Amino acid sequence: MEHNIDLSGYSIRTDLAVEAHELAQQQNESSIPGIWLQADDSEADIKVTRLHVQNEEAAKQIGKMPGHYLTIEVPKLRDNDTSIEEKVAQRFSVEFANFLQQLGITEDKKALVVGLGNWNVTPDALGPMVVENLLVTRHLYKLAPETVGEGYRDVSALSPGVLGITGIETSEIVFGVVEKSKPDFVICIDALASRALHRVNTTIQISDTGIHPGSGVGNKRKAIDQSTLGIPVIAIGVPTVVFASTIVNDAITYLLGHFGQSMVESKRAYNKLSLSSLPERKEPYSEDDLPDMESRKTFMGLVGSLPEEEKRQLIHEVLRPLGQDLVVTPKEVDDFIEGVANVIATGLNRSLHRAVDEGNSASYTH
Amino acid sequence: MEHNIDLSGYSIRTDLAVEAHELAQQQNESSIPGIWLQADDSEADIKVTRLHVQNEEAAKQIGKMPGHYLTIEVPKLRDNDTSIEEKVAQRFSVEFANFLQQLGITEDKKALVVGLGNWNVTPDALGPMVVENLLVTRHLYKLAPETVGEGYRDVSALSPGVLGITGIETSEIVFGVVEKSKPDFVICIDALASRALHRVNTTIQISDTGIHPGSGVGNKRKAIDQSTLGIPVIAIGVPTVVFASTIVNDAITYLLGHFGQSMVESKRAYNKLSLSSLPERKEPYSEDDLPDMESRKTFMGLVGSLPEEEKRQLIHEVLRPLGQDLVVTPKEVDDFIEGVANVIATGLNRSLHRAVDEGNSASYTH
Amino acid sequence: MEHNIDLSGYSIRTDLAVEAHELAQQQNESSIPGIWLQADDSEADIKVTRLHVQNEEAAKQIGKMPGHYLTIEVPKLRDNDTSIEEKVAQRFSVEFANFLQQLGITEDKKALVVGLGNWNVTPDALGPMVVENLLVTRHLYKLAPETVGEGYRDVSALSPGVLGITGIETSEIVFGVVEKSKPDFVICIDALASRALHRVNTTIQISDTGIHPGSGVGNKRKAIDQSTLGIPVIAIGVPTVVFASTIVNDAITYLLGHFGQSMVESKRAYNKLSLSSLPERKEPYSEDDLPDMESRKTFMGLVGSLPEEEKRQLIHEVLRPLGQDLVVTPKEVDDFIEGVANVIATGLNRSLHRAVDEGNSASYTH
Amino acid sequence: MEHNIDLSGYSIRTDLAVEAHELAQQQNESSIPGIWLQADDSEADIKVTRLHVQNEEAAKQIGKMPGHYLTIEVPKLRDNDTSIEEKVAQRFSVEFANFLQQLGITEDKKALVVGLGNWNVTPDALGPMVVENLLVTRHLYKLAPETVGEGYRDVSALSPGVLGITGIETSEIVFGVVEKSKPDFVICIDALASRALHRVNTTIQISDTGIHPGSGVGNKRKAIDQSTLGIPVIAIGVPTVVFASTIVNDAITYLLGHFGQSMVESKRAYNKLSLSSLPERKEPYSEDDLPDMESRKTFMGLVGSLPEEEKRQLIHEVLRPLGQDLVVTPKEVDDFIEGVANVIATGLNRSLHRAVDEGNSASYTH
Repeated sequence: MEHNIDLSGYSIRTDLAVEAHELAQQQNESSIPGIWLQADDSEADIKVTRLHVQNEEAAKQIGKMPGHYLTIEVPKLRDNDTSIEEKVAQRFSVEFANFLQQLGITEDKKALVVGLGNWNVTPDALGPMVVENLLVTRHLYKLAPETVGEGYRDVSALSPGVLGITGIETSEIVFGVVEKSKPDFVICIDALASRALHRVNTTIQISDTGIHPGSGVGNKRKAIDQSTLGIPVIAIGVPTVVFASTIVNDAITYLLGHFGQSMVESKRAYNKLSLSSLPERKEPYSEDDLPDMESRKTFMGLVGSLPEEEKRQLIHEVLRPLGQDLVVTPKEVDDFIEGVANVIATGLNRSLHRAVDEGNSASYTH
Repeated sequence: MEHNIDLSGYSIRTDLAVEAHELAQQQNESSIPGIWLQADDSEADIKVTRLHVQNEEAAKQIGKMPGHYLTIEVPKLRDNDTSIEEKVAQRFSVEFANFLQQLGITEDKKALVVGLGNWNVTPDALGPMVVENLLVTRHLYKLAPETVGEGYRDVSALSPGVLGITGIETSEIVFGVVEKSKPDFVICIDALASRALHRVNTTIQISDTGIHPGSGVGNKRKAIDQSTLGIPVIAIGVPTVVFASTIVNDAITYLLGHFGQSMVESKRAYNKLSLSSLPERKEPYSEDDLPDMESRKTFMGLVGSLPEEEKRQLIHEVLRPLGQDLVVTPKEVDDFIEGVANVIATGLNRSLHRAVDEGNSASYTH
Repeated sequence: MEHNIDLSGYSIRTDLAVEAHELAQQQNESSIPGIWLQADDSEADIKVTRLHVQNEEAAKQIGKMPGHYLTIEVPKLRDNDTSIEEKVAQRFSVEFANFLQQLGITEDKKALVVGLGNWNVTPDALGPMVVENLLVTRHLYKLAPETVGEGYRDVSALSPGVLGITGIETSEIVFGVVEKSKPDFVICIDALASRALHRVNTTIQISDTGIHPGSGVGNKRKAIDQSTLGIPVIAIGVPTVVFASTIVNDAITYLLGHFGQSMVESKRAYNKLSLSSLPERKEPYSEDDLPDMESRKTFMGLVGSLPEEEKRQLIHEVLRPLGQDLVVTPKEVDDFIEGVANVIATGLNRSLHRAVDEGNSASYTH
Repeated sequence: MEHNIDLSGYSIRTDLAVEAHELAQQQNESSIPGIWLQADDSEADIKVTRLHVQNEEAAKQIGKMPGHYLTIEVPKLRDNDTSIEEKVAQRFSVEFANFLQQLGITEDKKALVVGLGNWNVTPDALGPMVVENLLVTRHLYKLAPETVGEGYRDVSALSPGVLGITGIETSEIVFGVVEKSKPDFVICIDALASRALHRVNTTIQISDTGIHPGSGVGNKRKAIDQSTLGIPVIAIGVPTVVFASTIVNDAITYLLGHFGQSMVESKRAYNKLSLSSLPERKEPYSEDDLPDMESRKTFMGLVGSLPEEEKRQLIHEVLRPLGQDLVVTPKEVDDFIEGVANVIATGLNRSLHRAVDEGNSASYTH
């Protein structure tokens, strides 16, 4: 999540391709050429979306690098339910194994897993926590290869720390370690920012595009991807934070639609609801309270007509004096991060090592 | 913060008396009888507000128990600046000593400090963290009174844990320990919920009203206050979380005023701003884009006329499907909690023990 | 482990009844009347010893309160092997359930589990760590009894902290909470001191004698047992530390026997060993190096004849200037404590709640 | 401390040059050529020893690499006394600054500080804990050099983790990062093993010899020193653990002397001591209990004549079946490590950055 530090273009505010695509579609009101998207909700509680950004033009449209993005969304992941976590770990391991296969990464290829982020900042500790629970084997291959059983891949792992602690760009550390340890591919794990609170800690994104700190902001910080490392770089990310201003923005957007299209219904529903159950309610709305069609049109025209970008900028400017332009995370962040780190570590151990499966993977994580 | 678990009346959503008072004033548009308020910003960077809820009527109006509330607001407390922290600790110790004096609590009175909250949930760990850094002396008075120097009060401390971990109401644990250890007064430290992100981790509230879990919701959970314990109970609280929906609500309220009164100016300002500095801007607004007075009035009529309570309920209902009714905390919660816990522990050690001062208090905290 | 603070009689130095009994036997060279002992090693890797101190006379002889002691010894518990941990958790749950039954504690009896010790001192954090992983239900019985399924006992839990943090005797806190929460019996979990490094983190002791801080030292600190609480108190302890001087003492005792009986063989064995494998060896012993029978007798007479107590006192006096009279714990203490806390929490959850078994108990611990 | 993993030659068992030198002297009974040693106890509570291993021959004799070793011994460092810690931090900063100067390392030279060790194993977490509290500046020099004030050196830092977590040799990670980040010299911080409990957590060793994992054991693990990195490597180490068998060995050695020379006096002293103060004492020794001169000679001949190496090997062989060949650390390890890590971080910040001094250094550590 280090790359958010110099996030000058607040307008980005999402590291998830599915969100970026949604946003772009809202503005275009038509499908975007060069984007291929497939949703799969065949398994209960789990929605898997595969999104392919096929060319530079499409990449520019949605603000995400060309490549493959796979998103696993599990709203119940926040329930701290062990059986859901096991289910997601298993699905993750299957999807990740397929992802590797499609990239032509076979079982004999050596993996280096990099846990990005700051272990002292709970919502940013995802990467280091996954690394702690990985089954690493590279040293066994080096020091005592005869002891390594069938079905284990050569895996190493690293938590490089963040710029504020090391003073060294993460990418420099990774480059140096890759040169010395010579893996065949790299897996980077990072905490992400989302636009929507409901995606925080419920969504896992896998992509083959690598890591691009503060992308597009013309800074000097280097990407960690195939073009810079010379080997495939797969990024695994989980949104753990959201900008307060995007919560507001999205709520207003939602409210605008709601007001415009269904204010009448909403007020009527509210009348029913309130009368029966809510002590705070004093009296129902009369029909006269309801806005006439004309007012609603005016309202829509007033705010709704602002281009998305400008509306957001306006909200941003307005909220800054309120001190509300903070990055926030759910109160239960400690539990959430631990749970999702366990899911990813378990899933990675299974998909990287054929010999690790549902029966024995618990032995490898804490 | 345990009392938020069964917070059925979402409408409360603030544990700060100054916020509750602000809200009540917004609705009344006049000063509330029975409320005495005094603000003191004589010291740079620090604003101290003293608020006295003088009777039951006033208490009902603002939704806070009758009693004295002292609030220390320091926006810079979030900057992780050691010199600011030292300054606030010192001010806190002076204010807290005065607060004790006004309650008639003299130096010979024995204190029990109770650190409420869950040590496993970072934004709720404030109380236990303060307790860890207190200078406790009760055992010395009991076991080796001759070793206790001049200027030290009899102080004990307890972190009772939360209902989900113990299965026992916090109040029951505190009652039991008070009966056995017989302090003369109790200090409860707790993490609070605020309405405003800018108050999170920048505000300390001291009150003589004790702790009232899920107040007013008719639940069976007992208060920890003078009426239940028979001795004075002073509560120290710091808002560490905010409901996502109140962020939205307050932003919308703010925006409404902004839209209504200054949309024209805002757009004009935006034009200037954007043209010079923002690459995202495509073109300035023309004067024709600006809403005419009629539209603005309609807009105000449409949303602005909703009573506060109903507007909030509406936002709540609307946001629930977005999964956005979460309690959130700033991403940097680990650092914030550590910093403010240190401020309070240092301040308490100084005000409870005359012999502890600016020169030596660092030795007692970690 | 708090009671070790004022451990003036260093001669105790073991909280394990089996060790105290061994020591007493060494000095008596005959079985002690009033001690009933039964060892059971029917299950591989696990040795269970049941020891009954039947009267005050026997208690005085071995320095342990009259009552039942059950010890589970598992040398492999230190191997960090998940399958061993599961096996021990299961055995513990069976033994503990039987222990409850023999005390006449039926399924409807309410339990309060007290995690003694200091969570900031890793080898003393066992009790608090077990408490964190317990399935507590008392609040459900109180607030929503209809939601509690069949097969769950009323369980509450508490980590009272230690005297240095609270300033209040642990026993006072427990008494107060017991009076308010009214359990039918109490389970206390504590880290212990052992005489032998090989028992550290490999041994679990269950007893019905309660907790006796600094027993026999005439201090003012109160016991937590049936006589003080009025309800059964079961203690569960795991040795996590050992006094450096007892390591030395036991090694010397062992060496004395070794020297006396097998020095010749040892040196001969050493010759063989050294010649083949050890580069440090310069040359073998000649037969002339071996001590004759007379010398060996003299040696035995010299040191071996000292009474156990005096030999220990001598070692203690000798070592003090070396600064070696520290309490030590294995370097891997973090892992050990986590593992054994998990074993006990899992075992307790299963034996306290009939509805928790091997299939689902993992969901209740972290 | 990672290099202890494959410590096959138990005979080493000390990472401290002063201990190695003491041992060598005990065996030689004369001073060793090529060793220059100077002790300085001009400052109360602090003993500084400078030891220069001047050539390969001397290095072989004491088992330590040729180079300079500076040892700061502070028995009171274990007292958790803030004023002692401040005093040691200040002395450390002065000594370390001199050490740099003598190596010709000027203020403009860029430092990389490497925190060796495992953050999950408390006694091995020293290095990572120091790194967390360093004032790093390299990123400021790179990204915004104009913001760096006068008196700050270019400092970066890294906690590479241990082989069991990363699967990569620490030296490989350091080599890779040095190549990319191009420091002028490296400082490695590591937890050490000592022979003596009284040196654990009371001693800091600085040397210019770098880090040599499992030295001399013919393993494949690479050193981190000037010969492998091409730039000066300064090692800072603190003994945090001791082998149980060396506690025994040293105690026996000490006892042997004691028995031989002063058993009579000891028993007489014991008589006096016991009669007055110890309840356990039954009756004084009669003069007949005391060993005659002949017995004492025999005893000395029996054990005392064994060469040091063989005596240790014997103890090792004897103790193995007792399961006592563990590495141990004092029970209070958490506090000790935190305290000494703070001392080193504070001292390093002062000696690396001229602008950091006693007045402001607290702001840079937690």
